[in-house]
Formats: sequence, C-alpha cells, structure tokens
Amino acid sequence: MKINRAKKKFTNPLYLESGRILEPYELVYETYGELNEDKSNVIVVCHALTGSHHAAGLYEGDRKPGWWDGVIGDGKCIDTRKYFVICVNVIGSCFGSTGPLSKIYPTDKEYRLKFPVITISDMVKAQINLFDSLGIHKAEAVIGGSMGGMQALCFAIEHPRFAKKHIMLASTYATQPWAIAFNKVAREAIIKDPAFENGNYDPKKIKERGFEGLAIGRMSGHISYLSPDSMAKKFGRFYDERDGLYDLFGKFQVEKYLDYNSKNFVQWFDPLSYLYITKAINIFDATRNYNSLEDSLNRIKSKIYLIAFRSDLLFLPSEMKHIEETMIKIEKTEQVEYYEVDSDYGHDAFLVEIPKFEEIIMRALKE
Amino acid sequence: MKINRAKKKFTNPLYLESGRILEPYELVYETYGELNEDKSNVIVVCHALTGSHHAAGLYEGDRKPGWWDGVIGDGKCIDTRKYFVICVNVIGSCFGSTGPLSKIYPTDKEYRLKFPVITISDMVKAQINLFDSLGIHKAEAVIGGSMGGMQALCFAIEHPRFAKKHIMLASTYATQPWAIAFNKVAREAIIKDPAFENGNYDPKKIKERGFEGLAIGRMSGHISYLSPDSMAKKFGRFYDERDGLYDLFGKFQVEKYLDYNSKNFVQWFDPLSYLYITKAINIFDATRNYNSLEDSLNRIKSKIYLIAFRSDLLFLPSEMKHIEETMIKIEKTEQVEYYEVDSDYGHDAFLVEIPKFEEIIMRALKE
Repeated sequence: MKINRAKKKFTNPLYLESGRILEPYELVYETYGELNEDKSNVIVVCHALTGSHHAAGLYEGDRKPGWWDGVIGDGKCIDTRKYFVICVNVIGSCFGSTGPLSKIYPTDKEYRLKFPVITISDMVKAQINLFDSLGIHKAEAVIGGSMGGMQALCFAIEHPRFAKKHIMLASTYATQPWAIAFNKVAREAIIKDPAFENGNYDPKKIKERGFEGLAIGRMSGHISYLSPDSMAKKFGRFYDERDGLYDLFGKFQVEKYLDYNSKNFVQWFDPLSYLYITKAINIFDATRNYNSLEDSLNRIKSKIYLIAFRSDLLFLPSEMKHIEETMIKIEKTEQVEYYEVDSDYGHDAFLVEIPKFEEIIMRALKE
Repeated sequence: MKINRAKKKFTNPLYLESGRILEPYELVYETYGELNEDKSNVIVVCHALTGSHHAAGLYEGDRKPGWWDGVIGDGKCIDTRKYFVICVNVIGSCFGSTGPLSKIYPTDKEYRLKFPVITISDMVKAQINLFDSLGIHKAEAVIGGSMGGMQALCFAIEHPRFAKKHIMLASTYATQPWAIAFNKVAREAIIKDPAFENGNYDPKKIKERGFEGLAIGRMSGHISYLSPDSMAKKFGRFYDERDGLYDLFGKFQVEKYLDYNSKNFVQWFDPLSYLYITKAINIFDATRNYNSLEDSLNRIKSKIYLIAFRSDLLFLPSEMKHIEETMIKIEKTEQVEYYEVDSDYGHDAFLVEIPKFEEIIMRALKE
C-alpha cells in the first residue's frame, strides 16, 4: 500500500459558519493507494474527536498503526489496490491542521482562545477545498464513524454531488443532551484546572507535569465510548493485586484502565483542541440551516448507509434509525440502508468490531 | 405526622469489616410516626450516597422536604399513621453521624484521610446497634434505593431475622465496573483538585471559594442518575438564550443544569464523605464473605422485593434480575418478587417516579 502524508496551505479565506474567517489555513492529510487517471477511485475517510489523518499504515518507530488500519489497506474492506483513500486532519485539531495553537497571521501570536468556534460544516468545507486543489471533484464514498459520521452526513447534505455514497457509523443527525453532558464534564475539568491558565498553558510544560483536568475529561469520554457490558467483560470486579480492598485509594482494574488511558492523553492531545472539537460536536445539528431534518435530508442525492451499534450509549441506534425513518418519510427509501450491529463494545465498536461491519461497507462500495 | 430528630452516641467499639475499629461513634437519625407498644410497627428506610436521615417532612426554614417525602407520611405509601419509620444517617456521611471530619477520640484532631474505609455491612451494623439501643429488635421492613438498596440487601443477608421484608429499588448485588467508572471520574476530580489539599481543606473555605473538583464529580454522578431519554425530554437541544451558538463557552440548557446542580454541591456535601461513601459503594459485593451469591442469598429468611427501572443506567435491571434468578435457583421462589418499572427517568426514578412504584411497596407491606 502506497502511503503519503502531505500538508497543503491555503491563502484564500475559509468563511466559517459563525461568520468569522480563517485565513490562511493549513490541512494535513494522508492518502493510501493510488489515484487513477480519471480520478474516479477516491474514498474520503473522516476521523473522530481525537483521531487524526493517520488512518492506516504503520510509521517507522510507531507502535500502533493508523486508527482504522483494520479497515483500510491492500485487500482489506476499503481496498487500497482499488481505491485512493484520503483522510484529512480536521481544522481545530492538533495534528498539523490549523487549530487553536496555530499562529494568527501575520503575527507570531497563537490563537489560543481567540481561535474561532468551528463546526462540522466548516471541517467539511475545508476538506472540499483541499480536494478541489488536488483536482478531485468527486468521490466514490465518504465514510466516517462518530464525529466522522457527522462529517459524512454533512458531505451528503451540503455537497450532495460530491460523493456517490455516504457511510455513517455510530453517529447522529444532531448531538443529543446525553452526549453533550459527557462532553460537559470533560470541558469543565479542562477549563477549571489551574494548569489551563485560561488557555495560555505552555504545551511543553503540561506534557512534562501532566494536566489532571484533561485526564479527568478523557475518563469521562472513555466511559461514554464503552458500555456496561463491555466493561463487565473486560474488567469484572477485579481489584489490583497490590492494593488493599480497604485502602481508600486502592483500585479496581477498571480504575487502573481509566488512569492509564487518561494520564498519557496530554502527551498526544491538546486541551484547547479538545474544547474546540467537542464544541463542534455539541453544536452539530444537520437541521440547523434548514427548516427540518426532512428538509436537510431532501438535499441528499447519494445513497446513505447507516451503521449503528446496539450497545452504543453515546450516539444511540435510535438516533441513526431516525435518519432512516426520515429518509423513508420523504420518499427516499431507495437512498437509505440502516444496519444495527449487535455488539457489546458500545460506541467503540466502530473502531474495534470491524469483522462485524466490514461486509456492510464492502457491499455498499460494490453496489 | 410526628417527626423526631435525634443523635445517639455509642462508646462501645464498632468493629469494622476492614478489621479497624470506630470508637466512639455517633449516629443521627429521624423517626416519623409513633412506635407502638410492642414495637412491632417499625420500618427502616435507608438513604443513598448523598442522602441523609432527613427522609420526610419539611423543617422550618427549609425549601425542600426530606428526600422521600412523597413516599413517607400520613396516608402515604409508607403510612406514618400505622408505621414508625426510622432513617439513619450512615457512618462516613457528613450530616451528623461519625465521618471523616469527626474527631479522633480523645484528641482534638479530625480523622480526615485517617478515617477507616467503611462498607455497606458496617453502615448496617451501626444501624442495628442503634435499633438495639432503642429496644427495637425487629422490623416490618427495610426499604432503600440505590445505596439504600444495598443496605436493605445487606440487612436481609447479614441480619436475616431482623426484618420480615426487604425492598430494594434501583440497586445491585455487587457494584459493576460501569458504576465504579462513574465514581472514578468523581473521585479523581476531587483528589486532584489542589483545593483538596490532600484531605486537609478548610471546610468553611471551600464553601466560600467553591471546590471545582467536587462540582465536576457531581456532574459525572448526575449523568449516571439520568438517561438519554430523560435528558432529551428535559433539555432537548435548547441553548441558553443569552449565549451565542458560536461562543466557545456558550451553553446548552443541559450544561446550565449540570452547572447549577454541581456548583452548590459543596454547600451541602463534604468531599471526604464523597470519597468514603463512593468507596463503600464500589467495594459493595453481597458475595464477599460467602462462596457465591447463592450462598449469601441462602441466608435470607425474609421476603425480598426487587424494584428495577428500565432506563436505569447506573444499576441495570439485569443486576436486580440476577438476584431474582439466583433466589429461584436456590429454591427461594416464594421469597422473591421482581418488578421492572417502565420509566424514562433513569436511576433517579426511585426518587421521582413514585406513582409508578408506590403500589408495589404498599402491596408488599400489606402481604
């Protein structure tokens, strides 16, 4: 599989949904496979909250491959011998695309809290601009899970002629208060930590000293990505062997897991990006610029595939089902397919239960 | 309804499950109604994590009545014209019973982090001692929701001859990792807040200045008490009218609710008590001192009533159902009744959906 990482700088302004302007801006992206001559084999993959453009392949020195390496590759579900796959780091993120730690042109000052609030539409618009600059004006499919699914839906509604198919996994048409509440715990934990310094923390220093607020926020996120069943299977009521049961700070295995997975989060993710991207997720609402969901879905010209996971407690299957039902209501029955995958893994299923849904994607791409 | 509040001091040691000793200790309790001559009309009500002995009635100057005022009272579900109801503040709590801010006898020093880890069994043992001292050696029923339900189950297993009936609502036989994870976020937020000062905070000062960690912890708790449906119904995606949608710190109604309900938490609850009581909840396991759940339930001589709520995401109906199934397995079918109440309110249903379960309690008490 041919992998390429690149960065593209745009000097044209990006007009944001908020009315503000991002100018200039940069996008980092990765591609897998080779673009064919008539540029007709493109598949866009969209990442989630803490994801990045590094969706597949293993870089030298890395212990872990890209976040959807089980899906994208030669002979895999999204076959890179056939398709040219692009994954773009969203604006607002911290992996190279323009975000809160970028500098305000032409000064040497970073945006920090002056960074504009961005939306899923803005993330998608920026990607469309990138594809334009690469001479890519159409795609076979746009695919994404969680926040990536929001982007896929947004592509379908706001750029209806761009892709033939849109595949959303573990996502929603509008973020519900339950998900907003989990984000709230994380956001508060970040903002209220003195280490946040009103957004003016030293990124190096927090990596050295840790950032408890971000770790606590990550824990809240982790709960929402799992499910009671997956936790029961994974951790049971096992207690750390070295801790006493009657030690106030003694730990269950599930607590050790949460500690372990949250403590290092600051080493690879930025607190301000967490605030900006959760904000984008919270305010995502596919109906916002239209009268209703019927109205917005009516714009869709492609076929959309909805893959929900039964135990997903962050974006419930009922939210995905609502998209299907609305498509049927507006007589777009032929343009929608809904699948509810049986999994105990909760929201994380779209990352870890690949064998359970890869055939749906393969069939969708073949159709 | 006759209401009485009292405090009882014990100079005898309380031998704790951990092997440690609490000596002396005090219990604060409230009673409703009147004890009959042969002391045969007692009902014990057990409170949850942040509850107190103040279960019913309205005290002068208070805006809110006791936490189960809809259930306990003259002519109510637990009829105080007939029953003498007792509710005891658990040890470890912060409403008057001995807890982490109590003084280590005979010094003038507070326990703080030197307070022993307590268990549900310890809480129950202390209550039994109180009832003994009041000459009460039997009860019609022990009733409680959430952690109160754990106490009820513990009464049934460890003091099998004390009460004729045990009614558990929204509870479990052993706390599962999902619930431990929610507590983990809260515990970390408290411990890692510099205001915690390793347990040596000034209680007055944190009330004046606030304690962000406790507030964040409370938010995590609140999520687990609600459900996606109850949040959707209560808050929808409504946004604060005065906030801009594209303001990074603008708030949804659900965020305002979480802010409001968590900010003031420090005014009425103590961070160390939160740590000690969540620890007691985390390590609650009705099978611990027995070989299996079969073994422990085999000790039960009374009838147990299990009331679960369909949308409870903290202690799932399946956990309560497991108690019923195990009772049936050990041929105690006649001694168990399981009810799954249809409610959207999540875990909080045992506090707010009284009309949906009061008849079950009334029938149980009449049997």
